[in-house]
Amino acid sequence: TAAHPHSSSSLLKGKRVQPPWSPPARTDVPQLLVYNSLTRSKELFIPQKGNKVTWYCCGPTVYDASHMGHARSYISFDILRRILKDYFKYDIFYCMNITDIDDKVNYSTVKSENMPFQAHLATTTDPDKKQMLEKLDAAVTAALQPLQAAMERKDEVLLESSKDLLADWLDKQFGSEVTENSIFSILPKYWEGEYHKDMAALNVLPADVLTRVSEYVPEIVDFVNKIVSNGYGYESNGSVYFDTSKFDASPQHSYAKLVPEAVGDQKALQEGEGDLSISAERLSEKKSQNDFALWKASKPGEPSWDSPWGKGRPGWHIECSAMAGSILGESMDIHGGGFDLRFPHHDNELAQSEAFFENDYWVRYFLHTGHLTIAGCKMSKSLKNFITIKEALEKNTARQLRLAFLMHSWKDTLDYSSNTMESAVQYEKFMNEFFLNVKDILRAPTDITGQFEKWETAEMELNNSYYDRKSAIHAALCDNIDTRTAMEEMRVLVNQSNCYIASRKSAKQTPNRLLIESIAVYLTSMLKVGVMDSCYCISQLESTVMPYLDVLSDFRESVRKIAREKKVMELLQLCDSVRDDTLPELGVRLEDHEGLPTVVKLVDKETLLKEREEKKALEEEKKKKKEEAAKKKQEQELAKLAKMKIPPCEMFRSETDKYSKFDEAGFPTHDVEGKELSKGQAKKLRKFYEAQEKLYNEYLGMKENGN
Amino acid sequence: TAAHPHSSSSLLKGKRVQPPWSPPARTDVPQLLVYNSLTRSKELFIPQKGNKVTWYCCGPTVYDASHMGHARSYISFDILRRILKDYFKYDIFYCMNITDIDDKVNYSTVKSENMPFQAHLATTTDPDKKQMLEKLDAAVTAALQPLQAAMERKDEVLLESSKDLLADWLDKQFGSEVTENSIFSILPKYWEGEYHKDMAALNVLPADVLTRVSEYVPEIVDFVNKIVSNGYGYESNGSVYFDTSKFDASPQHSYAKLVPEAVGDQKALQEGEGDLSISAERLSEKKSQNDFALWKASKPGEPSWDSPWGKGRPGWHIECSAMAGSILGESMDIHGGGFDLRFPHHDNELAQSEAFFENDYWVRYFLHTGHLTIAGCKMSKSLKNFITIKEALEKNTARQLRLAFLMHSWKDTLDYSSNTMESAVQYEKFMNEFFLNVKDILRAPTDITGQFEKWETAEMELNNSYYDRKSAIHAALCDNIDTRTAMEEMRVLVNQSNCYIASRKSAKQTPNRLLIESIAVYLTSMLKVGVMDSCYCISQLESTVMPYLDVLSDFRESVRKIAREKKVMELLQLCDSVRDDTLPELGVRLEDHEGLPTVVKLVDKETLLKEREEKKALEEEKKKKKEEAAKKKQEQELAKLAKMKIPPCEMFRSETDKYSKFDEAGFPTHDVEGKELSKGQAKKLRKFYEAQEKLYNEYLGMKENGN
Repeated sequence: TAAHPHSSSSLLKGKRVQPPWSPPARTDVPQLLVYNSLTRSKELFIPQKGNKVTWYCCGPTVYDASHMGHARSYISFDILRRILKDYFKYDIFYCMNITDIDDKVNYSTVKSENMPFQAHLATTTDPDKKQMLEKLDAAVTAALQPLQAAMERKDEVLLESSKDLLADWLDKQFGSEVTENSIFSILPKYWEGEYHKDMAALNVLPADVLTRVSEYVPEIVDFVNKIVSNGYGYESNGSVYFDTSKFDASPQHSYAKLVPEAVGDQKALQEGEGDLSISAERLSEKKSQNDFALWKASKPGEPSWDSPWGKGRPGWHIECSAMAGSILGESMDIHGGGFDLRFPHHDNELAQSEAFFENDYWVRYFLHTGHLTIAGCKMSKSLKNFITIKEALEKNTARQLRLAFLMHSWKDTLDYSSNTMESAVQYEKFMNEFFLNVKDILRAPTDITGQFEKWETAEMELNNSYYDRKSAIHAALCDNIDTRTAMEEMRVLVNQSNCYIASRKSAKQTPNRLLIESIAVYLTSMLKVGVMDSCYCISQLESTVMPYLDVLSDFRESVRKIAREKKVMELLQLCDSVRDDTLPELGVRLEDHEGLPTVVKLVDKETLLKEREEKKALEEEKKKKKEEAAKKKQEQELAKLAKMKIPPCEMFRSETDKYSKFDEAGFPTHDVEGKELSKGQAKKLRKFYEAQEKLYNEYLGMKENGN
Repeated sequence: TAAHPHSSSSLLKGKRVQPPWSPPARTDVPQLLVYNSLTRSKELFIPQKGNKVTWYCCGPTVYDASHMGHARSYISFDILRRILKDYFKYDIFYCMNITDIDDKVNYSTVKSENMPFQAHLATTTDPDKKQMLEKLDAAVTAALQPLQAAMERKDEVLLESSKDLLADWLDKQFGSEVTENSIFSILPKYWEGEYHKDMAALNVLPADVLTRVSEYVPEIVDFVNKIVSNGYGYESNGSVYFDTSKFDASPQHSYAKLVPEAVGDQKALQEGEGDLSISAERLSEKKSQNDFALWKASKPGEPSWDSPWGKGRPGWHIECSAMAGSILGESMDIHGGGFDLRFPHHDNELAQSEAFFENDYWVRYFLHTGHLTIAGCKMSKSLKNFITIKEALEKNTARQLRLAFLMHSWKDTLDYSSNTMESAVQYEKFMNEFFLNVKDILRAPTDITGQFEKWETAEMELNNSYYDRKSAIHAALCDNIDTRTAMEEMRVLVNQSNCYIASRKSAKQTPNRLLIESIAVYLTSMLKVGVMDSCYCISQLESTVMPYLDVLSDFRESVRKIAREKKVMELLQLCDSVRDDTLPELGVRLEDHEGLPTVVKLVDKETLLKEREEKKALEEEKKKKKEEAAKKKQEQELAKLAKMKIPPCEMFRSETDKYSKFDEAGFPTHDVEGKELSKGQAKKLRKFYEAQEKLYNEYLGMKENGN
């Protein structure tokens, strides 16, 4: 502490001055570290310019439905992005690409696979729509046929004419100016839309900027040109290749920073590139097998664009370099992508961009999300365990999927299995239960001063623990965004809160409302960052929506009153349908208590729908039983009627298995073995005969009366 | 850049390693500075323990309605708290006191001023309630009368008996165990409730912990005891005083750190303490005039608690030291209060607490909110310009008040005037207009891929400016939470966005939806931190509420259809009333387009109510005009009828101002001057006569027909 500036006598003299002050010693405040693939270790995260974080993420190649492998990457990056934005308060500028010019796109188009008409066909049940789609599908297939044939035959003349035919057809179909590339945009345009819908269903935020390769071809050509003029690229047979040796030899540069050990490894290269892009023909054009295409001369039938090297199309890696460079400039803070993309894609991107910008820091932090396995196995077409996002969303909600992701490290392998999802569902239930309890406590009436109760030891202890948990959660998120630990700390906080609530209740005291509410609001805000789901909100939804629901409920109440007075049954049915069919879908339960105002409750939607199902099942069963009873009754009546129609003289005649002789009135005299019936037997049969006589007379009476 | 680790030949060899990596050079990132009254300058803000910020704020003395002076302090601290919590992401733990034991409370109670009955009486219009309150008021006044009389006469015997009487009366009124202190809790309990209501109306967050002096008397007694045993306090005549000289002489301590120059300044002391607490009697008990009371012996009739020094009550300053110490411990990060409280209150609090904890860092950062003036003048009872919070809220919304506060520095004087409020209202309108425009742009239909348009130069420029503005806003908030500059930067951002939108529209192009939405969402989140008002939300309210409103609208539509078919007028009126009376109150406009589905729009409530007023006024005017026309018609008919009733023989007879002689049929023959009428005149009059004859016959016909 500082020396004391005053003598005691100075107290009476005035004109004293403030004593010296020093700030508190900074305690060990954790700082954000991220696992950087460029060093394969956790590094202190330092953006290049103030709070702004520029971020490029590799987007999808849009030629088929998105699957759980996509979800693995995009949900994980969405979590990282939201936490950096909403928790760490960075000004994120997030750019993503859509690869809509690609060998796989062309291949699927030419093979007429995954076309939108087919995708629609597979799901539609409307026969009219089905017929229309089938026609469209046939038309596209027909339009593509000559092109396919021409390509197979390598018949240049046929190819040209079939392209013309195709262009004509496209012109008619789409009405706009059609280039020969247009046919190759039908498929990616459709699957891009499906991708956006899937992402919206998963609550994945859209990128701030989305770049489509098809919109950046001129920029890509310029980019390749500059690399060539910088000396790192060469033209060969209408294609342009990156000169990896030249690049790596430059003192400023280094090739394959992410996976240097993979250089020259053909297996790694093949896995990374996929089978489509490597052909013997192309290999011979390259100076070195490490070199890769920046620009590919288009073969006949392939889409193509003009360039200084003739008609061609962009190489796979160059698109990301050109688009990210165009939007984010010579260096970005974060580049993200799946683990698979490290080599060759990201290493080639890095090389191209650093060759273009002549720097060695195009990406500051390279983040790669871990693999996804399906119940322990690699997801692959051969194992037939591909799961689309739509399929996953049929089994679990987007919130449950997200909770599962949050409960695992973003950079390690995530196993999508029933165990994984069960843990997420349990966590969700555990949290929901806590929020319901808190809501219940907060709903208990109190006057405005009553909610501020004096804090005793129990409250001080819970509060200290609460701030310790916050601290631990902060430390976890700083440690490479360790959401798994953060979620566990949240679970501990809920457990401690539950214990506090239970101990207060067992002492017949109400828990401290403000403290409990504060904890619930904190947990809500944390879950909102990670899960982005308004259902968790502890109070906001109720206070926002209730006024509107009250209007609806009051209006419906008045309608019912008038409908009853005027005896308009349709209105009463309408009112019931709003309660039973419409509102449960929105998680609203209306409870009609005759003579009292209707009670409006916001309940979790699934519970309500389950309730409704159960009610329906019960009604169904009742109805079934009733129908069965009615059927039985009808059958009995029919049997009775059939019996009634038999004249008594006929009733025994058919029973030749019992009797062998009858008198003139049809009454049996001898049994089947020719033995005369005993008096007792005859007496018994006489009773039946008389009963039938009575029935038959009834029947005759009915007939006379016209029934 | 680092030295290159590979030779070019290594490219073929494999087993390469990653090149060295270094983080980017940290650029000049602004850090949070706050103006600390302990140094009278801006200091780097460093909490003592991680992200946790402990904060104590001086709360109100609850003996009267809260006024704009209170609003100045509590809204400003609410803004600081929300920004530290929601923007800077500190874990704030906020503690505030309620002073419910106080000379002013006792004085008002004994004088029977500001009692809840009286406050209710002033506002209630219900005659039954008024009568009941008058009875209650009379009863309290009667119960207090002997006490007042006894105090005036200083009659100890009468005082004791009147206290007994009072206790009896209180027992009957309140039913619970009554101490003689109870009468002094009626007033503060009521005004504390009113204070909380006012704060809720201003959107001021409640404290995490609220401490009432009346609940902390034992802790206060212990606190005083420890100060005495530490050697910094002395008992004198049943009271305990703080020994300022002894404290200041200690090498560790310093008295009056905040305003050292005020020590020994009687004027400063008097202004700070108020007139009530200084009496000649008390002065003689002190060793030095700088010393101040930690514990005051209670005079007869004053509320009192047991203590080692006899019956007494806490001194003013000690309550805060004891309560803050009890909740926050030996040191807090921030202590807040109004500028007026710096000396002696906060300096004495500091001295007491540092004497108790034997440290010199009880408060790390002392923040004082600036004064409030009313149209340039000090707010004072003598100027009769006290404005209660309720009065201010009649003129402006809580949001507008908050915007006014945000547009000024929290630590300087704020002038509450029509100019100030007009600027806030203009700012609000400016922002609202922008949000409405953005909503309009976002509502325009597009397919899911259509919203991702390629960015051109205009978008890149706006985006760069957007991130620059974010950066400037961050810098402003770091600079002692300069909300004024932040608000100006936000205005600039809106202006730039408006220019971009206008230039796109004039080029017949739609503005980039994602970029505009991102800016609007950012502004929404910033305004939400500062203004805490969901009305600003750009999309959340709409997406949250719309599904429920759609149900209401569809239901109403079906009801209308059935009502029209069945001709139930009451139902149609009910449907109109929901549209015209109920929903506008919630900011909802239903537009019925016959034959088409009803359109639901969320519009600002005030606009809707205004629309409704205008519609009503228009209808009113129409109705009035119609009524006037009907009245005129009726008068004309009555006049006609009156005229009809006159027999032709009578019609001229009354006109003695015109004619002097008539024939037997009542036809005039001479004018008023006795001159015979000319033929022309007679002919003219004959026409009138014949017309009247016709009318009269009509009348007789009507009479016969019973009309």
